[in-house]
Amino acid sequence: MKTIAVLDSTLRDGGQAEGISFSVSDKLKIVSTLDELGVGYIEAGNPGSNPKDLEFFREVKKLTLKNSKLTAFGSTRRRDIKVEEDANIKSLLEADTPVVAIFGKTWDFHVTEIIKTTLEENLQMIYDTISYLKKQGKEVIFDAEHFFDGYKHNKAYAIEALLKAEAAGADCLALCETNGGAFPDEVYEIVKDVVSKVNIPIGIHTHDDTGLGVANSMMAVFAGATHVQGTLVGFGERCGNANLSTVIPNLQLKRDYVCIPNKNIKKLTSLAIRVSEIANVTLKEQMPYVGKSAFAHKAGMHIDGVTKASHSFEHVSPASVGNERRFLMSEVAGRSTILEKIRRIAPDTSKDDPVTSVIINRIKELEHKGYQFEGADGTFELLVRKALGKYKPFFDLEEFKIIGEEPSKTQGISSSAIIKVRVEDKVEMTAAEGEGPVNALDSALRKALEVFYPELKSVHLTDYKVRVLDTKLATAAKVRVLLESTDGEDYWSTVGVSTDIIEASWIALVDSIEYKLIKDIEKKFKAYL
Amino acid sequence: MKTIAVLDSTLRDGGQAEGISFSVSDKLKIVSTLDELGVGYIEAGNPGSNPKDLEFFREVKKLTLKNSKLTAFGSTRRRDIKVEEDANIKSLLEADTPVVAIFGKTWDFHVTEIIKTTLEENLQMIYDTISYLKKQGKEVIFDAEHFFDGYKHNKAYAIEALLKAEAAGADCLALCETNGGAFPDEVYEIVKDVVSKVNIPIGIHTHDDTGLGVANSMMAVFAGATHVQGTLVGFGERCGNANLSTVIPNLQLKRDYVCIPNKNIKKLTSLAIRVSEIANVTLKEQMPYVGKSAFAHKAGMHIDGVTKASHSFEHVSPASVGNERRFLMSEVAGRSTILEKIRRIAPDTSKDDPVTSVIINRIKELEHKGYQFEGADGTFELLVRKALGKYKPFFDLEEFKIIGEEPSKTQGISSSAIIKVRVEDKVEMTAAEGEGPVNALDSALRKALEVFYPELKSVHLTDYKVRVLDTKLATAAKVRVLLESTDGEDYWSTVGVSTDIIEASWIALVDSIEYKLIKDIEKKFKAYL
Repeated sequence: MKTIAVLDSTLRDGGQAEGISFSVSDKLKIVSTLDELGVGYIEAGNPGSNPKDLEFFREVKKLTLKNSKLTAFGSTRRRDIKVEEDANIKSLLEADTPVVAIFGKTWDFHVTEIIKTTLEENLQMIYDTISYLKKQGKEVIFDAEHFFDGYKHNKAYAIEALLKAEAAGADCLALCETNGGAFPDEVYEIVKDVVSKVNIPIGIHTHDDTGLGVANSMMAVFAGATHVQGTLVGFGERCGNANLSTVIPNLQLKRDYVCIPNKNIKKLTSLAIRVSEIANVTLKEQMPYVGKSAFAHKAGMHIDGVTKASHSFEHVSPASVGNERRFLMSEVAGRSTILEKIRRIAPDTSKDDPVTSVIINRIKELEHKGYQFEGADGTFELLVRKALGKYKPFFDLEEFKIIGEEPSKTQGISSSAIIKVRVEDKVEMTAAEGEGPVNALDSALRKALEVFYPELKSVHLTDYKVRVLDTKLATAAKVRVLLESTDGEDYWSTVGVSTDIIEASWIALVDSIEYKLIKDIEKKFKAYL
Repeated sequence: MKTIAVLDSTLRDGGQAEGISFSVSDKLKIVSTLDELGVGYIEAGNPGSNPKDLEFFREVKKLTLKNSKLTAFGSTRRRDIKVEEDANIKSLLEADTPVVAIFGKTWDFHVTEIIKTTLEENLQMIYDTISYLKKQGKEVIFDAEHFFDGYKHNKAYAIEALLKAEAAGADCLALCETNGGAFPDEVYEIVKDVVSKVNIPIGIHTHDDTGLGVANSMMAVFAGATHVQGTLVGFGERCGNANLSTVIPNLQLKRDYVCIPNKNIKKLTSLAIRVSEIANVTLKEQMPYVGKSAFAHKAGMHIDGVTKASHSFEHVSPASVGNERRFLMSEVAGRSTILEKIRRIAPDTSKDDPVTSVIINRIKELEHKGYQFEGADGTFELLVRKALGKYKPFFDLEEFKIIGEEPSKTQGISSSAIIKVRVEDKVEMTAAEGEGPVNALDSALRKALEVFYPELKSVHLTDYKVRVLDTKLATAAKVRVLLESTDGEDYWSTVGVSTDIIEASWIALVDSIEYKLIKDIEKKFKAYL
């Protein structure tokens, strides 16, 4: 059992990713999430280069962390000035974290051509900065930027820079594969050589530009590195940083390392989703271990195999990382997959039950129209219920009308909707304004239905996705609307397809409401059913 | 210079991915794309398990391939029957391809527990099937399913199965890391051992369940494998197959291997995009080499470095794979990035030019409202033009009104729009029906503007994305609409943000039209400007 110190840089290197921008409140939420997961270090920002980060460092002190040490990131002092006069170093101290990570040059070419100083002065910059920070009582990680390229071009100088950092009192030397261009065999050999030459812990920091971020981190660990840097879901500049949600279970579930407290491994999926959601990014479905598809089986024979003996087709159990096995539907998958899903609602359904064929045909027909049920469990469940006779409508639409006008008396376009619904023999007619036609219709519908079903007040949509199905037809194309709803306890997804975005939204909206109402009945009356 | 035979399985294993479903026409287009790239083998389907695949194999014969050999995929004969009586083997022959790939069991556990036969009968199944297919004149690849797990559990039997396939006349033994659970160090050792024991080419087939699909393929090659299986953009069951758009340039640009004709490497990005588009999937932005973000720089100091010496921050040149370098905007990036972009339109703009500040402030203000310019170059260019005074509006909106009704005389909801626009002193008023309100408005606007600008007839939208910005506000939340347009020659993207989806669409629509009109003026009058 070997211990690996994990440094998560979602808030620093992850913030360099295209499309990622964290507010101070996002950052605080991510710190709590990473602490809950139990990584050793949270690299939280660069107070010298980003004023927003200083505000964050003030706020974050109000949190009490159980597992992680906050780390501020900055560079060695600038050339030709005293370390104590360097504004970035001052900001770094102002951040008031127990740990600082200092990056410095170890590739000779970068020293002379990019920061334009002498090789000697660069070594002095490393020495001065680290020894100064050590005197201030900091734990210091030295990030040897471009170390692998440096080693390949001028091995002696790259090693000399590391030794200088060690001599200055650094607590850890993190070898950075900054450009993401190295291969696992090289990384292994180089780390092995470094480990033999220094006496303090060696770390590894990799990027995914050659699709090898995870592999390079692991090979470095196999060569003796004991500190791994990455980002929880792989956010990072260009192709991203080493994905810790892959590296951690790789090392901890499949080899004899401990990266985070053992009991937290099963939180990995939900915490990865949480970090993505805070970043307003949908977690990649194909992401190892934590992605929605990571344990999704489609081919008929694979499903057959998994059902017979799960380890025969799964390298780890989905539950070990808090994920779940899913069976997908497709023409390749066939009856057995669909049957698996039907049985969740009606456990006694057999393969040869006529209702199975009815459902399969209905699915095929809807798929042909552009529906996709893989991401719409709510709509799928309703479809199965309708076929099984375990359904009756909660209301009927009598009519609706939507009006949008520009210019209007208010700012922007005014949108409003009029709706008339019937529940049994009672008719309710309402009107609502809205931010756009879908919202106006949504508001009017809820307003009308809440009269009959007050429990709908707790429901709101958490996501609203629109996919143009035949892109060549542009705004006249069929659109698939995917809604995600929550009542604060559960999440469910519903889908609608139409050439009209309002109709597609309407279909998915009605399913969302009906799904909620059925779910509540089930909970409330379970004992009687 | 060592040659690697590449087998692309986008159409077979790729079709197992969640959300992927190919029509026959999609498959034909992908075959042409892969042949253009120049992979050695295209594994195109499983005619035995999927009737749609037989139709495809009939159609594909009409194509003349320059580089690739078509490969049909199937399993060894079933237990206890004669190979010539096996229906799947008959379908495989019916597919009439020069190459067949046959998968068979090499993990003893799978033989006895999943397909429930004896270890001896399984070896006979391998032998009979391959020797029969060889007699029919086929080139035969033996896919040793679960080989690595098999080797770890019962090495002797796994090797015996390979030797049986070799004895039966197989042309290549592809070792399949079916569950995606192996690590690069193991893969290297095991492949090395196998290479020492057989006399025919060894192939490698990996999955990405531990984020190591690419690494494992490469380590197998370093250990002596000369045939690599994967899918061009990583489509595949669960976490996907080894991504060939990463493996190929890794081996060909950075080590001494030839996977595809050298001249085709620079087509990699555009062909990867094409395959994704045919599959109706947006290529992952972070994908190594071919992703939109693969060479996107955000941090100020990185941009500074790239500008000084590109190889200092890029492991290969973006142009080598047909991709391009991009500079992104963010509070971290600062002036220099934005300046880079401004200079594309006004090359003489200096850093201290007041217009630079005007633009930066405008960007910040819009970003605060929820705009994002990273994916909306068209809107960004218009913004810069407006600040530079290189813009005047092409039309003014006088008014519009949108009406949606349910029930209507037609099927579904009826949507219509009335619009009045002014171009100089001429007013045009039109109305149009549409599939939904955005389409009705889009149609009416184009109808009105085509009177003045007939070149707009060539423009259509290719993508229409809606992103809910504050998901908690549901359909009342701010939405960002991203439009992608084309006139058949170029693509451009524009963005609009509003709490009203129609208004957001309208903003992006107007930008799309203006961008096109400016682009045409530039082309037409370049000589005069």
